[in-house]
Amino acid sequence: MINQQYKDMLGAKSVIRELSEYATARGKEIGYENVFDFSLGNPSVEVPKEFTEEMIRLLETENTMTLHGYTPSLGNQLYKEKIAESLNKRFGMNYGPEHIFPTTGAAGAISHAVRAVTKPGDEMIAFAPFFPEYRPYINGAGVELKIVPADTETFQINFDKFEEMLTDKVMAVLVNTPNNPSGVAYGKATLEKLSSILKEKSKEYGHTIFLISDEPYREIVFEGADSPYVSKFYDNTLSCYSFSKSLSLPGERIGYVAVNPACEGSDIIVPMCGQISRGTGHNCPPSIIQQAVAKVCHMTADLSVYETNMNIIYSTLKELGFTVVKPDGTFYIMPKALEEDSVAFCKKAKDYDLIFVPADGFGAPGYFRMAYCIDTDKVKRAMDRLRQFVGEVYKA
Amino acid sequence: MINQQYKDMLGAKSVIRELSEYATARGKEIGYENVFDFSLGNPSVEVPKEFTEEMIRLLETENTMTLHGYTPSLGNQLYKEKIAESLNKRFGMNYGPEHIFPTTGAAGAISHAVRAVTKPGDEMIAFAPFFPEYRPYINGAGVELKIVPADTETFQINFDKFEEMLTDKVMAVLVNTPNNPSGVAYGKATLEKLSSILKEKSKEYGHTIFLISDEPYREIVFEGADSPYVSKFYDNTLSCYSFSKSLSLPGERIGYVAVNPACEGSDIIVPMCGQISRGTGHNCPPSIIQQAVAKVCHMTADLSVYETNMNIIYSTLKELGFTVVKPDGTFYIMPKALEEDSVAFCKKAKDYDLIFVPADGFGAPGYFRMAYCIDTDKVKRAMDRLRQFVGEVYKA
Repeated sequence: MINQQYKDMLGAKSVIRELSEYATARGKEIGYENVFDFSLGNPSVEVPKEFTEEMIRLLETENTMTLHGYTPSLGNQLYKEKIAESLNKRFGMNYGPEHIFPTTGAAGAISHAVRAVTKPGDEMIAFAPFFPEYRPYINGAGVELKIVPADTETFQINFDKFEEMLTDKVMAVLVNTPNNPSGVAYGKATLEKLSSILKEKSKEYGHTIFLISDEPYREIVFEGADSPYVSKFYDNTLSCYSFSKSLSLPGERIGYVAVNPACEGSDIIVPMCGQISRGTGHNCPPSIIQQAVAKVCHMTADLSVYETNMNIIYSTLKELGFTVVKPDGTFYIMPKALEEDSVAFCKKAKDYDLIFVPADGFGAPGYFRMAYCIDTDKVKRAMDRLRQFVGEVYKA
Repeated sequence: MINQQYKDMLGAKSVIRELSEYATARGKEIGYENVFDFSLGNPSVEVPKEFTEEMIRLLETENTMTLHGYTPSLGNQLYKEKIAESLNKRFGMNYGPEHIFPTTGAAGAISHAVRAVTKPGDEMIAFAPFFPEYRPYINGAGVELKIVPADTETFQINFDKFEEMLTDKVMAVLVNTPNNPSGVAYGKATLEKLSSILKEKSKEYGHTIFLISDEPYREIVFEGADSPYVSKFYDNTLSCYSFSKSLSLPGERIGYVAVNPACEGSDIIVPMCGQISRGTGHNCPPSIIQQAVAKVCHMTADLSVYETNMNIIYSTLKELGFTVVKPDGTFYIMPKALEEDSVAFCKKAKDYDLIFVPADGFGAPGYFRMAYCIDTDKVKRAMDRLRQFVGEVYKA
């Protein structure tokens, strides 16, 4: 019989996708340049030319059977070596290739990491505000996700609530820094406190509480931000990465899990991920993409536009009286709406062709998310429109 | 805690992979040209040059953000249109793009198809001999797999056993034709009888029994073979395909599920697959590969070497007195070993540097599998070695 669970999921359309579809349709009506679409987190900067050159070189020179053949089931060796090398150099880690499991983006990485360190019936904790897709990733492994309410002052961690919720049923904790949707990064003090609680509770409960760190925005960090490497603070960390944002390659589905060499089971977690793949039909990321990214994994696209955009938006929001925490990175910002109901606020903004996403689904009711991976020129024009909207609707 | 289920799976090494690793190590000792490695089903023919040309054209001319950006969550539209068009033209079907769900190879396709039409606790049936990875694919969805013993005369379906085992707990049946490991295709008579039983039992039990058809070898069919398109015989069919073999692209992880337009739920199964992906972290196959394959999906690599090899091997096996059914396609053949214990037989063959895989793991004890995706010259030399082996060990 048709599976009722997945059938039922069809009803619940993604708010982001609906807004993005609306923006596209509206763009056809009035010209896309006149729709200020802050809905989707789709990178807006060119892929580094070195990636394209390496792809062409591989296609022109390599034997097609080697180039497009099966990769080893635990991934391309060069890709794993280059990633370990790059992480070690930048963050003072000591990964070997045996600690790196190539995945189809961060989605694949999180799905593997969760299955490796939990079993169906366990609980996991994540912190609001959070990326809503964590629910299917985690529920798909049969694990229950509990959300710690946001610390809306700073969007760091609400530690009081966290300690209350961290029962002995919790086998893993998921963090995302720099954060989608708030743009805020967890600073040194936050990570130290998190680590100390996890160590204490692991000891108290007699089992390791693993930390799964989702960090696709790790390379998009703004001037002066305090955004250290999570795994440095806690040995039992599985870092989940995607090149979607740093190399602008979201469609090519390429990322990895990096298992801290000092993590419990660090010698078996990567081979276990190979076994997990068999049950989800996931297999390795594409062979040619692994090989090309091996060559450029230490680089990033030119990500400076995101900081430029953030500064323009942040100062406009402050000027207009919004409550907002300044982002440390990513291409998101999450201000408080100008009325309690952020859905109503976003609906009114839509009448001005400003497409914002209510942050209720991210666990931050009353806030809204703006994804500013768009042209700076358009951001500037959008700020004029925002002034007009706020002036006419909220200050009239 | 480290997940015990996946940890336990680490103990059970794949027989095929172990043999393949042995062959590689042995090749380093005595030269790879002297090891007759029939263990792995890795395509041995060049990728069509049109694919490489299209990849380079895309890289040289397309905007990198479009080329490598997120595909729509149900896949690239052109890829889906071209596949529907190609299937309709070749098999007289009437698929629309809305019936095609792009996946990371057949592994991804089967994982989605199984989850779409079963729920945890259900049963599925497959037929021996069968590809051993079906177990993790199906068990990974929480579904129990029952295996109908082989009809060793013809390697068609053992219908008496099938009817006995087809209880009302069985929600789907999985077929693989042309078959890995036997090389045999299900003929028209087999598919008609299968269809008639599935219709009858669906009616009797009051629920649809779906047919999941795994057909990565569909394009490798030999002269005179009776190998029709499965979905033509039974409306409630989900066809799972991979371009791994037909285009020699196994590492690029590209395939699809094609839902028969007359199938129950044909309007929702593809969107449901999109929901299933969220829980497994699978997402779409790589964007650039979808776009390039859209251009060449009606083509195949030059697959003729497989038939050439098969004829050489089949006639040698017959000459040496082996019991063997002539393959209709694929690049496998599955003869009966010359002693009851095929593991012992393969071990003795290994002493002659002939690497064969015992078919016990494929549900055909006493048989062994040869994967002949290797150079014809090497096949010929391997036949001399086989003559020597059989002469010295079994006819001395």
